[in-house]
Amino acid sequence: MGEQQKFRDFRIKGIVSAPFTPFKSDGDVNYDLFPAYAKYLQDHHFQHAFVNGTLAEGMSQTIDERKETLEAWMKAADGKIGIIAHVGTNNLRDAKELARHAEKIGVEAIAALAPSFYKPKCEEDLVDYMAELAAAAPNTPFYYYCINFVTGIYLNSAKFLSLAKDRIPTLCGLKHSSRELTSAHSCNLVDKDRFQVLMGTDVQYITALSVKIEVPVTASYLGDIYFRLKSAYDKGDKNTADEIQETAQLINDIRGRYGGDIPVAKKMFSIVSGIDVGPVRMPMKDISKEKEEGLRKELLATGCW
Amino acid sequence: MGEQQKFRDFRIKGIVSAPFTPFKSDGDVNYDLFPAYAKYLQDHHFQHAFVNGTLAEGMSQTIDERKETLEAWMKAADGKIGIIAHVGTNNLRDAKELARHAEKIGVEAIAALAPSFYKPKCEEDLVDYMAELAAAAPNTPFYYYCINFVTGIYLNSAKFLSLAKDRIPTLCGLKHSSRELTSAHSCNLVDKDRFQVLMGTDVQYITALSVKIEVPVTASYLGDIYFRLKSAYDKGDKNTADEIQETAQLINDIRGRYGGDIPVAKKMFSIVSGIDVGPVRMPMKDISKEKEEGLRKELLATGCW
Amino acid sequence: MGEQQKFRDFRIKGIVSAPFTPFKSDGDVNYDLFPAYAKYLQDHHFQHAFVNGTLAEGMSQTIDERKETLEAWMKAADGKIGIIAHVGTNNLRDAKELARHAEKIGVEAIAALAPSFYKPKCEEDLVDYMAELAAAAPNTPFYYYCINFVTGIYLNSAKFLSLAKDRIPTLCGLKHSSRELTSAHSCNLVDKDRFQVLMGTDVQYITALSVKIEVPVTASYLGDIYFRLKSAYDKGDKNTADEIQETAQLINDIRGRYGGDIPVAKKMFSIVSGIDVGPVRMPMKDISKEKEEGLRKELLATGCW
Amino acid sequence: MGEQQKFRDFRIKGIVSAPFTPFKSDGDVNYDLFPAYAKYLQDHHFQHAFVNGTLAEGMSQTIDERKETLEAWMKAADGKIGIIAHVGTNNLRDAKELARHAEKIGVEAIAALAPSFYKPKCEEDLVDYMAELAAAAPNTPFYYYCINFVTGIYLNSAKFLSLAKDRIPTLCGLKHSSRELTSAHSCNLVDKDRFQVLMGTDVQYITALSVKIEVPVTASYLGDIYFRLKSAYDKGDKNTADEIQETAQLINDIRGRYGGDIPVAKKMFSIVSGIDVGPVRMPMKDISKEKEEGLRKELLATGCW
Repeated sequence: MGEQQKFRDFRIKGIVSAPFTPFKSDGDVNYDLFPAYAKYLQDHHFQHAFVNGTLAEGMSQTIDERKETLEAWMKAADGKIGIIAHVGTNNLRDAKELARHAEKIGVEAIAALAPSFYKPKCEEDLVDYMAELAAAAPNTPFYYYCINFVTGIYLNSAKFLSLAKDRIPTLCGLKHSSRELTSAHSCNLVDKDRFQVLMGTDVQYITALSVKIEVPVTASYLGDIYFRLKSAYDKGDKNTADEIQETAQLINDIRGRYGGDIPVAKKMFSIVSGIDVGPVRMPMKDISKEKEEGLRKELLATGCW
Repeated sequence: MGEQQKFRDFRIKGIVSAPFTPFKSDGDVNYDLFPAYAKYLQDHHFQHAFVNGTLAEGMSQTIDERKETLEAWMKAADGKIGIIAHVGTNNLRDAKELARHAEKIGVEAIAALAPSFYKPKCEEDLVDYMAELAAAAPNTPFYYYCINFVTGIYLNSAKFLSLAKDRIPTLCGLKHSSRELTSAHSCNLVDKDRFQVLMGTDVQYITALSVKIEVPVTASYLGDIYFRLKSAYDKGDKNTADEIQETAQLINDIRGRYGGDIPVAKKMFSIVSGIDVGPVRMPMKDISKEKEEGLRKELLATGCW
Repeated sequence: MGEQQKFRDFRIKGIVSAPFTPFKSDGDVNYDLFPAYAKYLQDHHFQHAFVNGTLAEGMSQTIDERKETLEAWMKAADGKIGIIAHVGTNNLRDAKELARHAEKIGVEAIAALAPSFYKPKCEEDLVDYMAELAAAAPNTPFYYYCINFVTGIYLNSAKFLSLAKDRIPTLCGLKHSSRELTSAHSCNLVDKDRFQVLMGTDVQYITALSVKIEVPVTASYLGDIYFRLKSAYDKGDKNTADEIQETAQLINDIRGRYGGDIPVAKKMFSIVSGIDVGPVRMPMKDISKEKEEGLRKELLATGCW
Repeated sequence: MGEQQKFRDFRIKGIVSAPFTPFKSDGDVNYDLFPAYAKYLQDHHFQHAFVNGTLAEGMSQTIDERKETLEAWMKAADGKIGIIAHVGTNNLRDAKELARHAEKIGVEAIAALAPSFYKPKCEEDLVDYMAELAAAAPNTPFYYYCINFVTGIYLNSAKFLSLAKDRIPTLCGLKHSSRELTSAHSCNLVDKDRFQVLMGTDVQYITALSVKIEVPVTASYLGDIYFRLKSAYDKGDKNTADEIQETAQLINDIRGRYGGDIPVAKKMFSIVSGIDVGPVRMPMKDISKEKEEGLRKELLATGCW
């Protein structure tokens, strides 16, 4: 009961980074960079890091790499950045193993996307899957991670939350990276006293705020921008918030012109942070040196960094 | 030049209804109902009607029916409701004919979606198509109508506007019914002094407002709700606006439980307005009498009507 | 009863062309070319023409144009080529009008695809729609036209036939242009004494033959090739049939290298036949003159024409 | 050179089973059943087994389970069934590890599907990925495994083969489980002296034969049926082959009526073989006991088992 109240009351606060995983040129994880990266997040208004998610190429890493990467983040964060561990995989046994490991090393929360090679066919099947997964970390807040345009799974997340309510005691809400803001708002209304919607977004924050979704999960280069936007919004300075949102939109349009996907975002972070997080893993491909120069110029011309 | 300025300055203001087309039980257009429907729109805070669009089953009507329906709306509106005529079809010749007709009878604006049996393959091809279409009504403001999840055409609307700028003198913006609000915001930034984004939405309004998209195009049963939302928002009463947005979301969730699509929306309007707009045309199907009763009870229980 | 037997016994025989509609450079239908085109079909082993279908840009024509085009084909064919009229449109009233007209001028059969802007949601709804359409031409054999990758309607065609059996007395089968040959075979087994599957294909014929689907509906440039393939196959000369099928595959690969779609196919016919069927209508775009030259060279190098 | 010739000359012959992985009721791999399963394959005209593929729920197993399962198959097969190891995963490092392991224990060939969480964007990127993967087993024939409707990757497989020719010395062809037979035929023509197309199909075999694709990879319950079909076909007894193909189609229609997917196929095998291969893993769900009874009756009524 007291235990259940703990999960009901749990809330992520502030701004969450979805950090890229630093790789060396040979594709190995570059563990040397974690301390600098963690420092960067602290210095740029991030209170949490969502580790091993989509931008992090979590699904391109082995289970051992994901554990080691998570441990490296825990160490580098040193309690100053809250660590949310993404533990979703294509197979439930690995996901449970990752959940157990994450709980053991003391993350503040875990999250999991649905398996997408074999797909759950309905919300009920998704609940069954997630119930078993979440039970592997019975003392850790659990978030469902919904990103339909990547997984190809177009289930109703609000229905998932309603059905999962009594089945997953650790369920605290979801990370909604699907693009249908209407769905995110529906999720937010299922049980306001219990479920929290984290908004996965690399571009729009003010629209989420407008439906009272406060916490974004975003690329590491947007910390300052989202912080200033939120500050202005909270002060009631809508004009400034609008301007900053327009800037975020323009930054995203630049990203779009270079392809828009993860290799571009990862390179953008290397450019603006000065921390070289290195290449992406196959099957993705880095952008060319020539494109990188164009990207650098356009980004710096925005005056944001 | 003065002509061009006219189109630059043109703006739709207020709230736009996307009215259903009233049908008799045999499927014929029920022309008797237009006066009462127009009166309803006026009484429920609609300043404009977007005629023969998707909710209106425009694409299930013959060209002659679309002309007659448009004329009936013009007459019923009697200058008190601005009429925007949707003239898009699957073939350019019919669309041009509809555009010419709409201009001749004096609508305030026209709009057109892209043909979707044969699809434009890139933004350039879409511009070529729309340029020829819009030229058939050279004195009438023109809006592109983007609704990708129905047409299956996933082109970049902001890119369309940029490319069309110098090609379509009458272009005033677009009706953005696609669900990606990020795209709508990008469109809104292309040329703020010229292009207006109308937000096609039967559920979220506050998110559009949060990125300064002010004019919604919506189902006829949402007039009062959107009016009250906008009024509260403009007064800075965010709490009230939030509450109303939640109500709109809950209404949409009810609609979703009965199937969510056009037959449900059309029946919802008959229920809440008392104007029996009749059945939908094939291949769509009306909901059962039994479901209709459940829908009626849930709608009335909201206390909105 | 005798009437019903007539429809049970009806069969299309031989090879069916899906002719392109000849357009002038201004996009008007080029009626002058129909006699030469009909002569070409006769000379190249076509027994039937499927008029106003997908390759013909039927959906880019007005209802009046479709009637006039059909009449032009009837006249040019002069009883030597059987005319099957495609009467499908996005709205049922126009489709019925086209069906009535086709019956009146004496076509041998009609066919219709499902409306694709508003889509039937299940096989039952599709039957209801097609039953009303087919009833507009009660004395004319009717074929359902299934082409899911264009319409976006992925319903089970064999289930449609089973459900429609007792609802559509004129139903003689379907034109299966969807790519799932398994589905075509299922259709072929529903009622062998009644339903005939016509195989819409611009590339594979031998695979259809291997499941006893004998009649192809194809681009006008494939008449000789399919005729020779069928002759060899019927004589049991599998080696020759295989070689010809490989040739057809290579021709399709050439088409694929130039984009693969309708503008390429239409140009291919102009090249190999010497009958200039002209441009495509928007939103499609003709290939460049430069590409056309490359295409010409590759086609002629095959030695097929 | 001699080495290269080895790969050029390599051919899979006969009929390949894609065995289900036997699970216990708790989801653990049921290693006790492998000897009986291998015996069944031998007794039912299978010459090879494609291990850990889609029907086998390979992607729901951990890397260790996949290795152990493969070892169990190698042991049970005892040289009497050729073992092809599927080594594809969502991350290249695991896939390489599986490839190395498979080569070490002496499989006759390996195969891999493309990663589908992060997707290759073009054929070139797919070649780069597969080249690195295949190089981890430099002495083992390699097949690309194409199944677009599961992975969501719609790349041109014939183009892949052409581009990979000089990049992957061990490449022997592909397993084509995508439904476009035209694509399979194109692949078959790329380099007949080198590349072999294996046809992944649980229903149509005669269509593959008609374009000279001889080796099917199929569910374990189809061994006898495909063997008889092939024997009749090879003898020139087309009538018998046709009848058997119709039977296969009807069996697939039964499967379709119970949902059509992997849980149904797995249950079908348990029913017809008497070897209880147990449940599927989440997120898939077994069919109900009631449905299982209906399925059993329909299957046995076919007289095939």
